[in-house]
Amino acid sequence: MADHLQALAIEPRTSDEKTKMLNRLKRVEGQVRGIQKMIDEDRYCIDILVQISAIESALKNVGYSVTERHMKHCVTDAIEKGEGADSIEELMAVLKQFSK
Amino acid sequence: MADHLQALAIEPRTSDEKTKMLNRLKRVEGQVRGIQKMIDEDRYCIDILVQISAIESALKNVGYSVTERHMKHCVTDAIEKGEGADSIEELMAVLKQFSK
Amino acid sequence: MADHLQALAIEPRTSDEKTKMLNRLKRVEGQVRGIQKMIDEDRYCIDILVQISAIESALKNVGYSVTERHMKHCVTDAIEKGEGADSIEELMAVLKQFSK
Amino acid sequence: MADHLQALAIEPRTSDEKTKMLNRLKRVEGQVRGIQKMIDEDRYCIDILVQISAIESALKNVGYSVTERHMKHCVTDAIEKGEGADSIEELMAVLKQFSK
Repeated sequence: MADHLQALAIEPRTSDEKTKMLNRLKRVEGQVRGIQKMIDEDRYCIDILVQISAIESALKNVGYSVTERHMKHCVTDAIEKGEGADSIEELMAVLKQFSK
Repeated sequence: MADHLQALAIEPRTSDEKTKMLNRLKRVEGQVRGIQKMIDEDRYCIDILVQISAIESALKNVGYSVTERHMKHCVTDAIEKGEGADSIEELMAVLKQFSK
Repeated sequence: MADHLQALAIEPRTSDEKTKMLNRLKRVEGQVRGIQKMIDEDRYCIDILVQISAIESALKNVGYSVTERHMKHCVTDAIEKGEGADSIEELMAVLKQFSK
Repeated sequence: MADHLQALAIEPRTSDEKTKMLNRLKRVEGQVRGIQKMIDEDRYCIDILVQISAIESALKNVGYSVTERHMKHCVTDAIEKGEGADSIEELMAVLKQFSK
């Protein structure tokens, strides 16, 4: 469905952008492993919940960065090519899912 | 702060409960690595957002399981020992953070 | 389904608690009418979104108050009567819906 | 702050769009009054929470409609006039608040 929109996504991330994003995701990965350790060590539920909530925040922020970049590149390109409506509806569908 | 409540948390997870929880968290860890790969391969932003949203769901469900278990064990014990109010307020503080 | 649990909900809100809660809800009602006026006057979308977000926060806080009171009265009573598991599962089902 | 972006918001809602939006908001207003009645009548907390959750959903949907319209009109205009980045950052700031 999104194939023609995807083809518009012409501007790949710079290696600097990639590195930053990957570092954030590696930190999230480490946090998820940290929770496994907490479960394994019978740590207090509340402390585990606080950690899960921290990961959710971190993931949300990654999601916002991806969304902003998507709007500034893919959606902007689509609008300039007169295909804005499709691109916006595609994004809205994901945002609705995202904030569930 | 929560030390006396934490001391009430007498019932450690069974090894079966632990295994289930750890498996769910290992799957989440794998999904986070999957997103790193998607970033690295310049995959389409929308596909990345869909994956992030799936991880958020999975994490939320882990959080619900931890919360439910916490209520059935720690909060229930606290209530039976007449320390319910503290335990409930401690949980509410985390739930407020959690659903942000 | 929740009839026997509901019957446990023995402690009605004091008139002071009711007044506070009703005042908060009247404020929310006023905010919702405020948005209608903003729509009617063609106000800027972003300003409307900020207002909607403020109402969501206010409603969430009402929800937290109701949840906390529910735990301190209904759930606590249920636990003391040995029906804690049902009451906790009933609450969890709503919390899952709530944070969607 | 957003004055120059706001000035771009040239296309007012049609009277049909307004009517639909106002009807949705009037329904939300009625639901908020419904909760006041439930509080007043000492209805079961869980039933009140279910209703609050229904209002949150309805409000979120209004928010999505406003966001989508904003992207299709204001943001699209801004992009076409070369002011896309500002407009997108303004929207992102609200989205972050919104999904809190």
